[in-house]
Amino acid sequence: MPIFTKNYLRKITSNILKAAKVPANEALMVADCLVESNLAGHDSHGIIRLTKYLDLLKKGKAKPGIKIKIIKQTPSSAVIDGKWGLGQVVAYRAMEIAVQKAKKSSIGIVTVHHSNHIGRLAHYATMAAKQNMIGIIIVNGTRAHVAPYGGCEPRLSTSPICIAIPTKNKPLVLDMASSVVSEGKIRVRKNAKKDIPVGWLIDTNGKPITDPKIFYGPIRQSILPLGGIAGYKGFGLGFMFDILAGGLSGNGCTNKEDRHIGNGIFMEALKVESFIPLRDFYAEVEKFIKFVKSSKIAPGFKEILVPGEPENRTLQERNKKGIFIDDTTWQEIKNRAKELKVNLF
Amino acid sequence: MPIFTKNYLRKITSNILKAAKVPANEALMVADCLVESNLAGHDSHGIIRLTKYLDLLKKGKAKPGIKIKIIKQTPSSAVIDGKWGLGQVVAYRAMEIAVQKAKKSSIGIVTVHHSNHIGRLAHYATMAAKQNMIGIIIVNGTRAHVAPYGGCEPRLSTSPICIAIPTKNKPLVLDMASSVVSEGKIRVRKNAKKDIPVGWLIDTNGKPITDPKIFYGPIRQSILPLGGIAGYKGFGLGFMFDILAGGLSGNGCTNKEDRHIGNGIFMEALKVESFIPLRDFYAEVEKFIKFVKSSKIAPGFKEILVPGEPENRTLQERNKKGIFIDDTTWQEIKNRAKELKVNLF
Repeated sequence: MPIFTKNYLRKITSNILKAAKVPANEALMVADCLVESNLAGHDSHGIIRLTKYLDLLKKGKAKPGIKIKIIKQTPSSAVIDGKWGLGQVVAYRAMEIAVQKAKKSSIGIVTVHHSNHIGRLAHYATMAAKQNMIGIIIVNGTRAHVAPYGGCEPRLSTSPICIAIPTKNKPLVLDMASSVVSEGKIRVRKNAKKDIPVGWLIDTNGKPITDPKIFYGPIRQSILPLGGIAGYKGFGLGFMFDILAGGLSGNGCTNKEDRHIGNGIFMEALKVESFIPLRDFYAEVEKFIKFVKSSKIAPGFKEILVPGEPENRTLQERNKKGIFIDDTTWQEIKNRAKELKVNLF
Repeated sequence: MPIFTKNYLRKITSNILKAAKVPANEALMVADCLVESNLAGHDSHGIIRLTKYLDLLKKGKAKPGIKIKIIKQTPSSAVIDGKWGLGQVVAYRAMEIAVQKAKKSSIGIVTVHHSNHIGRLAHYATMAAKQNMIGIIIVNGTRAHVAPYGGCEPRLSTSPICIAIPTKNKPLVLDMASSVVSEGKIRVRKNAKKDIPVGWLIDTNGKPITDPKIFYGPIRQSILPLGGIAGYKGFGLGFMFDILAGGLSGNGCTNKEDRHIGNGIFMEALKVESFIPLRDFYAEVEKFIKFVKSSKIAPGFKEILVPGEPENRTLQERNKKGIFIDDTTWQEIKNRAKELKVNLF
């Protein structure tokens, strides 16, 4: 049960990537994104992903040191070919472009095709929030995981959305799959040999699945859309997000073909000051947060947390106490380090 | 149980509004929006609202014949003061501006404050879709209806979102409250003396309510956020939508004060061709729709319907068979017509 500091994890992650021929600046971008996910408590998007990225690099499916290409642009929009660069590098650069455009033109919308997995969306949406902009990101994948409302076979991506809103203090950050649960959380339960709650998964007869192993079996099973008794709403959102991220980017919507698994990306940056003075916006948001938190607490809860608050708390705790990495992941990283002749100190 | 043609309803609605000193063009805009809601099957947003609008006109809270004012703008954004005009008129004109901006600058984002209730969002989002743009609208109200996740008192609006996406045929249209159900659907159950399903409402102790009368009683009860077991996701969306619509528009987020109840509005138009050739976009969306519909059907369902499809079917049926208006609503309209000396033929 090894526990590490963020600086240590950042250093070894970037060293391993550099040994896999990733340029130093890109290695740091990827390491930052992964370690920040661990810090925020989203280990499913943390350095557990490193071995997968190394595999993609080895196979030539993720290309280090590429230059993304703007295919088409206007002062407030751009379409980018990510050229199958490392997802974190592509997404970081694409968001920089969206923010630049928003600085000059109030709004910047950038769509991206040919990007590898970009990791945790909050990483990029907060880039906008740090510049007093609202950042919105929607991505789709190329693999179907989610059943449509009324169906029992996978047809949609888990298409997550992230919205980051600047405040006087830390940004508000919502980062969620549009399905009832992300695929990663099912994997975590499988590795931990824990059952799945009813309401997450159905089999191809529409019956609930509680054993996560069945989900990863030979027959493709489905995650349910968000919404429970109003599942048509979650389905509707996931369906539209898939088109925004996959259709508008040219990366393609979710389909049955086995394609290179990457993310179609839709990114938006909105300069708050183009709409309302920052001071007024911050005051209104503060007032709203207070009002929401003033609600009577429901049985079984201790307090009301606004989007981003749970992650900020985990971050503070892990900054102090360190980041726990499970034995399997740590062993895998040690193996890769050895293979690539990287000293782990 | 009177049944009417859409043309008849449009005509009497606009005649009644004209008699209430609404200019002819505005009366038609409002009538169109209301009758189209009835046609689409959303009677809660149909001509049932007319008496409410007449009350607002009488009290001077809705002002006919106003000119909306652009407070601030850039080539791709605008902030509009709706000057408490009729909501349908304000929203229609604001969307026209968003579409105009998107025509020239790829993207148009418009926020609006001081607008009365704008009715069914799909009405405006499809204005963008008809111009080969993606239309997105989010609004908040000024009255809290929805409990935060972990709370049991109302703190958020039902903040609906509408996304309209153009296709080769009819646009895809998602139009949904971000809560598990809209307030209107509870009112419909109350009027029909029907119970509410568990999972829609909770009382101030967090216990389910199934009697809709309790919701409209002296103590304010709450609608649940969308999501069921993942209610924190629906809460997160509703919370962020409230800030986008209320915070960025200057109309204000949901709060406890008793203010003039209107809608804070966030509207966005995205020109598809600025991102991808229309032909390619249409082909991809068609392929995606087919793929989604090809899923095995779950028990209890007949087919998979994509967003907007149920409404299109109702529209075709009602175009043919007419629109049924309940006795109470029809009696109210007859009373108002008499009061305003409008001949109903």
